[in-house]
Amino acid sequence: MTAEASPSALTRALLAPGSVALIGASDDPRKNTGRPLRFLRRHGYAGRVFPVNARRDTVLGERAWPTVAAIGERVDHALVMVPAAAVADAVADCARAGVPLVTVYTDGFAEAGEAGAAEQARITQIAREGGVRLLGPNSIGVISTRSRLALTVNAALEGELGEAGDVAFVSQSGSMLGAVLSRGHGRGLRFSHLVSVGNEADLGVAEIVECLVGDPDTRTILLFLEAVRDGPRLARAARAAFEAGKTVVAFKLGRSAVGERLAQSHTGALAGSDAVADALLRDAGIPRVEMIETLLEIAPLLRGLRPPARRPLRVALVSTTGGGAAMVADGLGARGVEVATPDHAFVRAMADHGVTIRPAPVIDLTLAATAGAYRTVLEGLIAAPFCDAVVAVVGTSAQFQPELAVEPIRSALGSTTPGSDAAHRVRKPVAVFLAPDAQASLDLLARAGIAAFRTPEACADALAAYSRWQVPAARDLRVPPALRDTGPVAAGRRVLDESTALGLADAIGLPTVERRLLSSPPWRHDLSYPVVAKLAVPGLSHKTEVGAVTLDIGSEAELGRAVERMTERLADESPGAVAGGVLVQRQLKALAEVLLGYRMDPAMGPVVVLGAGGRLAERLGDLSMRMAPVTAGTAREMIGEVRALSALTGYRGMERGDLDALVDAIVRVSLLATGHDDVVEFEVNPLMVMADGVVAVDALGVTTNAGRAGGRMRD
Amino acid sequence: MTAEASPSALTRALLAPGSVALIGASDDPRKNTGRPLRFLRRHGYAGRVFPVNARRDTVLGERAWPTVAAIGERVDHALVMVPAAAVADAVADCARAGVPLVTVYTDGFAEAGEAGAAEQARITQIAREGGVRLLGPNSIGVISTRSRLALTVNAALEGELGEAGDVAFVSQSGSMLGAVLSRGHGRGLRFSHLVSVGNEADLGVAEIVECLVGDPDTRTILLFLEAVRDGPRLARAARAAFEAGKTVVAFKLGRSAVGERLAQSHTGALAGSDAVADALLRDAGIPRVEMIETLLEIAPLLRGLRPPARRPLRVALVSTTGGGAAMVADGLGARGVEVATPDHAFVRAMADHGVTIRPAPVIDLTLAATAGAYRTVLEGLIAAPFCDAVVAVVGTSAQFQPELAVEPIRSALGSTTPGSDAAHRVRKPVAVFLAPDAQASLDLLARAGIAAFRTPEACADALAAYSRWQVPAARDLRVPPALRDTGPVAAGRRVLDESTALGLADAIGLPTVERRLLSSPPWRHDLSYPVVAKLAVPGLSHKTEVGAVTLDIGSEAELGRAVERMTERLADESPGAVAGGVLVQRQLKALAEVLLGYRMDPAMGPVVVLGAGGRLAERLGDLSMRMAPVTAGTAREMIGEVRALSALTGYRGMERGDLDALVDAIVRVSLLATGHDDVVEFEVNPLMVMADGVVAVDALGVTTNAGRAGGRMRD
Repeated sequence: MTAEASPSALTRALLAPGSVALIGASDDPRKNTGRPLRFLRRHGYAGRVFPVNARRDTVLGERAWPTVAAIGERVDHALVMVPAAAVADAVADCARAGVPLVTVYTDGFAEAGEAGAAEQARITQIAREGGVRLLGPNSIGVISTRSRLALTVNAALEGELGEAGDVAFVSQSGSMLGAVLSRGHGRGLRFSHLVSVGNEADLGVAEIVECLVGDPDTRTILLFLEAVRDGPRLARAARAAFEAGKTVVAFKLGRSAVGERLAQSHTGALAGSDAVADALLRDAGIPRVEMIETLLEIAPLLRGLRPPARRPLRVALVSTTGGGAAMVADGLGARGVEVATPDHAFVRAMADHGVTIRPAPVIDLTLAATAGAYRTVLEGLIAAPFCDAVVAVVGTSAQFQPELAVEPIRSALGSTTPGSDAAHRVRKPVAVFLAPDAQASLDLLARAGIAAFRTPEACADALAAYSRWQVPAARDLRVPPALRDTGPVAAGRRVLDESTALGLADAIGLPTVERRLLSSPPWRHDLSYPVVAKLAVPGLSHKTEVGAVTLDIGSEAELGRAVERMTERLADESPGAVAGGVLVQRQLKALAEVLLGYRMDPAMGPVVVLGAGGRLAERLGDLSMRMAPVTAGTAREMIGEVRALSALTGYRGMERGDLDALVDAIVRVSLLATGHDDVVEFEVNPLMVMADGVVAVDALGVTTNAGRAGGRMRD
Repeated sequence: MTAEASPSALTRALLAPGSVALIGASDDPRKNTGRPLRFLRRHGYAGRVFPVNARRDTVLGERAWPTVAAIGERVDHALVMVPAAAVADAVADCARAGVPLVTVYTDGFAEAGEAGAAEQARITQIAREGGVRLLGPNSIGVISTRSRLALTVNAALEGELGEAGDVAFVSQSGSMLGAVLSRGHGRGLRFSHLVSVGNEADLGVAEIVECLVGDPDTRTILLFLEAVRDGPRLARAARAAFEAGKTVVAFKLGRSAVGERLAQSHTGALAGSDAVADALLRDAGIPRVEMIETLLEIAPLLRGLRPPARRPLRVALVSTTGGGAAMVADGLGARGVEVATPDHAFVRAMADHGVTIRPAPVIDLTLAATAGAYRTVLEGLIAAPFCDAVVAVVGTSAQFQPELAVEPIRSALGSTTPGSDAAHRVRKPVAVFLAPDAQASLDLLARAGIAAFRTPEACADALAAYSRWQVPAARDLRVPPALRDTGPVAAGRRVLDESTALGLADAIGLPTVERRLLSSPPWRHDLSYPVVAKLAVPGLSHKTEVGAVTLDIGSEAELGRAVERMTERLADESPGAVAGGVLVQRQLKALAEVLLGYRMDPAMGPVVVLGAGGRLAERLGDLSMRMAPVTAGTAREMIGEVRALSALTGYRGMERGDLDALVDAIVRVSLLATGHDDVVEFEVNPLMVMADGVVAVDALGVTTNAGRAGGRMRD
């Protein structure tokens, strides 16, 4: 490994370089590669700019150099735009010239297939050996409003750079830089920096976040993610941001299978990885929004706030338009956020102030409301203990009387001075939704630092993200080093047989079913009937599907016949497989069957999964995931998130299950996840939940020799 | 019943009255009640306007009359703005003067509680007896761009009325009129008429749709719904619209429980009614959108189209921005719409045209794409058989080179003439999403009649709505007349005992479990053990929860003990209840337990429900609903929508259930729904699905005497 630049030096080179080189700058201003020079000049970058072009002495009228080494002056940051085949030489040129940071715009690397991935590995190696940090390849560049640095090929820079602000944007999609810049400007959002990370061959999202944590100009960090490539590091960076009083918010593609596939095509991420990434983001204290609009509108809402103390969040709504407020309320309900109905104390307090309200989920003042009444109710809600957040909805007045519409909100939030971040003084989040198209009111709110939303969905989405937001977990996640390099399909991957897997359950103190492993006939044992019999077949993970399990066996004779039948069928269906004996278990009746396990995600670390048991579990998608290890409190949250487990809480007169025992089991499995580097997957399915206790009936484990090389058994 | 105005006369009075009276018009231009006169003058209404004010000779400088009767000239439409207590007199005044239509702006009626509801019934009765049709009360009025009619109190009319167009908007929320008008203008949407229906005491959404079907100026009808009050009539109106080549699209509140509660507060709708309304809208051929933005952006997409022939819809995407397209693709996937990967034939055809594309779910031409290549791909997609719809995503060029960005799309859609409805010529829907903030491009697209979306979510939502769109069902829905008036909590409501309910199942040819009803000990029968025993208790619908069911009974002695135990517990838990005997059934083992039933919704008609069986069914929400009766094809669709029933299709090696028998059962139950007016609820839970056949094991029926009064047994 090469020595890494210290964060502050890297941050300077990335966001405020004293000089930049443009390698492959074109003399044709209409070409993409002609843009960065034009953009740097146009937006007033104050540092030195060195066009590098081996075939020309001048570029767009400025002197050009044949190589970076030929410049003979310090270059802090080079942008490489030459064809893919020439990138390696350009990086080597930078290494020779002592350039600390190179951004590669050129595409055709890992995103383009195997040959590209190999070439990407080669240029990364050259950079590493030469002491050069690499942004990209396939990065559209870096924009910094403070240093007027428009070091990018993105055509959005034909427009304005915008006023300098404190919101940074980091994106895995290069083309989104322009979309976000233009949409953000329309919302009064002021950026500090925008960074496209491209293929993340070297510098990744996590390290860019680290840079921004150290950047005094940035207070909010917005992420556009396709996939999380280094979860543990991103979690550490987010924790550092949190401790520095900065907020990180993420939009991530991949809620749907096709979205996940699109992300995978770039990153080789696993199927199902979106759910794992979701668990990671929550664990890391990074609120995740569902809409790009929300990402652009949420910053003022979260500024200066910490995660909510109470869940589910109770949101009060005040409005002059019933329909507008109902859309927000419906959106909140659909996202699991509670809409708070004013309590009697509040209704009385408002009556004392001369405002009559009904105890309904939305305080609809109707279009007859005065500005005074609106302000009174809003101030009351900000102080009232029955709600944890407030949505103020404004109707037509926002369109024709912006000052009049915005004034009660600005006053209630404690500031009448534009630009003074009114919302910041209030510890309860206040979101505004304007029902009509009302740009002037949006502008006034933006200038006052008040969170205003253009759609009811983004408004509800923002509050739902706030509602789920939690303090970053204090411990570090880790991925066994060997697994990081080889991934989950490592050559050493080995499926444990059920006896061994159940033995692991025993080892962590999980109650397991009474069982006997019989190696040969006669199939005699001391368990009472009825029993279940299973063929012990190493490497076979779906025993039921090949008929290697028989239930309801009532006698030794029946057991013998069952073994015979199963053995024959196994020989038919899996010719290579050989049974290593018969596992006989007592047959149990449970209140519910649960799936409980973990897997070691090579990009994210160990993730615990809880769901309804049985073979339909996956199809039903009724699962809850968290990064391991989990606390008892988190384990209870997980139980609450699995709909099918409602039965265990006494729903509709059903017998209550032993939830304390289930919580204990979740915690123990999560500890196994962090304690065993070589067990990369472990799953109990079913775990039987009884009125008194839980029992593991079947288990599956996967080890990897690759893991064993790097990790060790720690129990 | 009074004679109703013929549709065309009513339509004229509603949308193009020759004269209007403003009852309660204020002389103060700042007051709400001062607005309509100002607005009518300001926007150039050409008809006569008669202010009516008992206390003044002039209003805002115009002559005023003390009553409508005193005017002495024909008044086509009166707007009533007097206080609630004076509304009845105003309506009576209109009746005397022969005014055919009165819109009541005044609120404080059914939406305000019982006293208001009584007063609303009184004014409705006065109107009916006087031959006056009533819009409202609590209606914010009517706007018509053709007749420059701004007959409304909505402050949005301080702005422009806008150019006349062919899109009508009908809203149950008055305040949304202004929001939709202003947002629509921002999107280049041109309205024909906007109508606020208020409390729908007389004229409801359905009848307004009927008017608009007969209105030659209207081609698209947008609905903002809180609740559907008359489903059968709305379905008929939607079918008439469909047959006239017009499209009806709905946004409806109530996806969440809180949204449903907000709607209920106005309408007294039932809990769970959103799911029923959803079934009704689908049945009626009304696409439902999830976002208000979609409602405002979808009209050009559906113009001239009919429902898709193939489901799920396969959507192809072409883009110059990978991130922007991925957001749309992710949104489509999350909504169950298929993203279509180009097939080899298409890739080859493009290669022949000199455009290299990869067979990936998004055709990403990257920012290096030429306009020619973009157009070639788009034209290819419009013609290609591998996809049923197309999304064209545009990146930064949309922001800075609108003509250049829009041109390939306009050309591909077959028109370069602004205003010529380019999209209309293509039979495959084409939606455009612009990644940046690009108003000029949006304007160009709107003028060309091409559907352009501002958010990836609205774009995906629109295509999902199109995907679910179906041809309106050909038969009429009906609600038993008596039930319509009394609602489901009619005095005559009676829960049938299980034997009677299972008898109903027998009557419609549904296989039922072998059973014996024993009235007294000894509990002897001819069924083979094991059996299930249940107390037959009339009126008890949740037997399991009070311990009135015992499974796994192996002998007559066990049966006796079980009956004793159940009888004791019943006496403890439900002191009033008396067992009417013991129902003994053969105990069956099934591949899956299903809930199958229907209920008669007093606002919507008979709705069939299919879901996973058992007590968790409701909590899991894993249900499918359709209006009854259903065809075998629809029954199959329903099975496909219940996730838990995947098991029956042989998922992961599970044994296949007899889906043909299940389809037959669904059809039979749906026929019972339409054939029995007095059975207002019927549910089999569980219906056991076996490898061969289905068996009803438990059933529940609810009759109403009220229903019997109006309906009759028809089998």
